[in-house]
Amino acid sequence: MKKTTLLYMVLIAAFLAYAARHVYTNQVGEGSFRSEELRGELGENYVMVTFLSGIEYWKSCLKGFEDAAEALNVSIEYRGATQYDAREQITVLEQIIAKKPAGIAISAIDPDSLKGAIDKAVDAGIPVVLFDSGAPDSKAFSFLGTDNAAAGGAAAEQMAGLLGGQGQVAVITLPNQQNHDERTQGFQDAIRQRYPGMEVVAVEDDKGDAMIAKDLTKSLLKRYPNLAGVFVTEAAGGKGAGEAAAELDRTEKLRVIAFDTDKDTLDMIREGRISATIAQGTWNMGYWSLQYLFHLHHDLTIPSPTASGDVSPLPVNVNTGISVVTPQNVDDYYAK
Amino acid sequence: MKKTTLLYMVLIAAFLAYAARHVYTNQVGEGSFRSEELRGELGENYVMVTFLSGIEYWKSCLKGFEDAAEALNVSIEYRGATQYDAREQITVLEQIIAKKPAGIAISAIDPDSLKGAIDKAVDAGIPVVLFDSGAPDSKAFSFLGTDNAAAGGAAAEQMAGLLGGQGQVAVITLPNQQNHDERTQGFQDAIRQRYPGMEVVAVEDDKGDAMIAKDLTKSLLKRYPNLAGVFVTEAAGGKGAGEAAAELDRTEKLRVIAFDTDKDTLDMIREGRISATIAQGTWNMGYWSLQYLFHLHHDLTIPSPTASGDVSPLPVNVNTGISVVTPQNVDDYYAK
Repeated sequence: MKKTTLLYMVLIAAFLAYAARHVYTNQVGEGSFRSEELRGELGENYVMVTFLSGIEYWKSCLKGFEDAAEALNVSIEYRGATQYDAREQITVLEQIIAKKPAGIAISAIDPDSLKGAIDKAVDAGIPVVLFDSGAPDSKAFSFLGTDNAAAGGAAAEQMAGLLGGQGQVAVITLPNQQNHDERTQGFQDAIRQRYPGMEVVAVEDDKGDAMIAKDLTKSLLKRYPNLAGVFVTEAAGGKGAGEAAAELDRTEKLRVIAFDTDKDTLDMIREGRISATIAQGTWNMGYWSLQYLFHLHHDLTIPSPTASGDVSPLPVNVNTGISVVTPQNVDDYYAK
Repeated sequence: MKKTTLLYMVLIAAFLAYAARHVYTNQVGEGSFRSEELRGELGENYVMVTFLSGIEYWKSCLKGFEDAAEALNVSIEYRGATQYDAREQITVLEQIIAKKPAGIAISAIDPDSLKGAIDKAVDAGIPVVLFDSGAPDSKAFSFLGTDNAAAGGAAAEQMAGLLGGQGQVAVITLPNQQNHDERTQGFQDAIRQRYPGMEVVAVEDDKGDAMIAKDLTKSLLKRYPNLAGVFVTEAAGGKGAGEAAAELDRTEKLRVIAFDTDKDTLDMIREGRISATIAQGTWNMGYWSLQYLFHLHHDLTIPSPTASGDVSPLPVNVNTGISVVTPQNVDDYYAK
């Protein structure tokens, strides 16, 4: 027993002495980390794939992807279904796989229908990561996106701060869409658990339409004349709720908290018609997606992506965080 | 209405044409991404801080930190409390802060006592990220670590695979330590939800001691003669359970699933005395910690770490994943 203790002490001392020298380079063998510099090769091309590819939301994801490409000296391509159409996105993905790119970052329109094409890419040796909208059962190596319950909680904190923890509030959302349900739930849970002076009096469906959100806000104000705040979980509706609030003839302001950073929303924060909006970590989704794909393509991770068995060469789930945009910092969120 | 549709179509077409040119560089303004190459400057030094700094577990975290330092051309230092002592770790951290390093990655011995020193570092303008053991209420920018419930679930899947979904199993753990409780819970939940032919008959405490784990395994076998598997949630105990299994005189093998990748555990997988072990994403913790600190130090993120308000410049929570080590891939897990 004493021999073992002594052996341990010698081993620990040896390791500490080793660590103190700050020379770790040969610890896990030469060549196990293959790149001295993170620089891509000529023709190394990565593809970002979305759906509804024309909407403003993706711009910041793409900017992150582009910034990482610039830093790593690789080229990128942006593709996507133009519509909200799973079959179109699958077709686009199949076309991309045929070209054998160095990696694919995809926001899956829906997890089940995309799984087959994603797995096909991975089986063909093409690294795939998911961002924004995941496909948990697929073979993709990682998912980078928002913790929507936490985002709803942050909206509740902001609302409580604006209202001094008192008053009736409502939610306008897209029921039965998972990310929106999670935002609503996170908002309601935070209020119930931490703000006994507040109450969520209604949860309404604006179908992603600013006009409907405006009408809903007006009718909510009739039903609840003391309504003090509205949290809108989707990008379009904040504008409508903000317009309804601006037209309001009351001593107390109706506080509106929106979601995402469309130019309209930012403008209305500047003008004081929307109090705050929740910015998702979209730049981070794009930036770290490309970093991950690069590391997979160059086999730089430990364990290796080619190791056998049930292996995670990369972080499997990355909560990209949110930021609260207010009149104080709104200028930072305009695409320059 | 038609006008609006037309306008949208023109806008979408314009954006697609823009995207098709693959020229995004000026989209968010020149200079908003400041580095053409990810290369550090002379004297740019990052520090990794742990507790029980001599144990084998940190080696792979440090290897990841070192590999990232090599890739980014910066220098690193490894420091830590030698004991399991919060006050010692705080002292070490204070000494590091005084030297104003470019960034600090720390595994917090306990969240509450370390919060003050961590916040002091951030307030002094030193980027801090947490890895392995977090401090959720601190001002650190990110946490990178294991989802312990998922790790327990993976152990349950592996066990079910080994046993054909049938039989009595037990858990040996460190009760009342959060990460170990989560592993136990994840294991139990997975079995209860997905394997009706299996039953967790006991949860025992080995106090982190291989000898106790060995004795516990033997006494479990007396109480449950048909015991088919043991999941040990902590690094030391797997060895003891594996020894008890090896000494066993039975037709059916007792399957042991261990945790972490100490040399002893890997040896026993090679010899067939332990069936599998759960490897944490330790290299990824270290590697991406340094990448994050580098990006904070060089102000490369959008939003910027210096932006006002409630801002996440980086992913806030990173599940670094786990890998299941079996006789098929065990050779990949020896430190070379």
